[in-house]
Amino acid sequence: MIKVIKVGGGIIEQKDDLNLFLNSFSKIEGPKVLIHGGGRLATKVAENLGYKTKMVEGRRVTDENMLKVVTMVYGGLTNKKIVAALQAKGINALGLSGADGNLITAKKRPVDKIDYGWVGDINDVNSNLLINLIENNIVPVVAPLCHDGNGKILNTNADTIANEVSKALAQKEDTELILGFELDGVLKDFNDKSSVIKKITPELFHKFKLEGIISEGMIPKLSNAFDAISAGVSSVRICNALKVAENTGTVISK
Amino acid sequence: MIKVIKVGGGIIEQKDDLNLFLNSFSKIEGPKVLIHGGGRLATKVAENLGYKTKMVEGRRVTDENMLKVVTMVYGGLTNKKIVAALQAKGINALGLSGADGNLITAKKRPVDKIDYGWVGDINDVNSNLLINLIENNIVPVVAPLCHDGNGKILNTNADTIANEVSKALAQKEDTELILGFELDGVLKDFNDKSSVIKKITPELFHKFKLEGIISEGMIPKLSNAFDAISAGVSSVRICNALKVAENTGTVISK
Repeated sequence: MIKVIKVGGGIIEQKDDLNLFLNSFSKIEGPKVLIHGGGRLATKVAENLGYKTKMVEGRRVTDENMLKVVTMVYGGLTNKKIVAALQAKGINALGLSGADGNLITAKKRPVDKIDYGWVGDINDVNSNLLINLIENNIVPVVAPLCHDGNGKILNTNADTIANEVSKALAQKEDTELILGFELDGVLKDFNDKSSVIKKITPELFHKFKLEGIISEGMIPKLSNAFDAISAGVSSVRICNALKVAENTGTVISK
Repeated sequence: MIKVIKVGGGIIEQKDDLNLFLNSFSKIEGPKVLIHGGGRLATKVAENLGYKTKMVEGRRVTDENMLKVVTMVYGGLTNKKIVAALQAKGINALGLSGADGNLITAKKRPVDKIDYGWVGDINDVNSNLLINLIENNIVPVVAPLCHDGNGKILNTNADTIANEVSKALAQKEDTELILGFELDGVLKDFNDKSSVIKKITPELFHKFKLEGIISEGMIPKLSNAFDAISAGVSSVRICNALKVAENTGTVISK
């Protein structure tokens, strides 16, 4: 069983939370892959460089300057900070962007109504590379960057990368996807942080959407989770990033 | 025979030169490892972020801010640009810092008279990782960053990294070190760019130093080369970075 763990920028950009997350991550037994975000720090570094971050419908527009920033921040600063911290905890981590070892190829998103710039839609994940590293007791740490095969790095959402990596691994090995975030799971009542739904099936998801129980922001996360399940991922767990090693949170299954 | 090729920032930070260098690098047959610098771009990014670059006796002082910049620039921007460009040329490159896969451990340089900050003196190179990647037809691309094993990234000169990586590989496999730079080799007359010395032995090196034929700046490069040879590296070649695949330049040997 390979576990793919995704952690967002909100956690890893706060020193204490990052450390707590990495402690929990270190305790996960067996083969594992870490996928990280890092958007908030990228926004901050861009700001410090005098570049304006353009967002359209909640998504970052990646112009030439922003591509440089995300390549620096995701591929350099954030990725290497995590790798060095894991090494200190005795985990043999190795950082990768999608260009490294041809891990993730993508094509630039076509301009429809909105031009998102240097953003990539994933074509293919080289799961053999991940499996080879895992067999050598290495823990791959993947930054949310792809490449187009023609020399261009492309920016891709970390949730999407986690999904596609899990789906590719699931073709070869039993794979679980764990999505770590700020809350304890999917909540039945957003004002009650303890109202975690233990399990969501497609039927329950449909029902909760109709009843308006699941919040707007959670719907794409859950749709992605069901997409991963349909593509062969054994289960998806949405849980508190500081407790990824514990069997808590919301399980999404068939 | 493994070839370790080092290329400096002066080449890789100019788009045309980078492309010419990578074309030549791509033509080198057999197993190879690329070590790159990137100091000039780091200085520029630091400047754009409002950080001042402190130099003492020609060496960069790496304070906390500069460590962030070199981690971003060497590990992110420069490394991923090279990796993506090599992928486009059909070379399965994979970028590494010294933290990745525990490739290079170092200790922070002790403060004697000068405090260089977060600069690392190399303890150990994990040559097994490089050999494993090479055996999988992967070309490692190494950024000049080490780690201390306690979670800290350390900045280390790319020439030093190239030397230590070659020495470590030479314990396992026949290894050649190729140092690519702006000139065609070590010159007998600095004003005559074609006056390349074909071969330098320790005796000739001693003689050239006494006669003042070899310039100040070249002496540490040659001393490092002889150090690598003494430690088992088969040969060191100092040549034009745009011609690394050709058998030109100055060969340093016993």
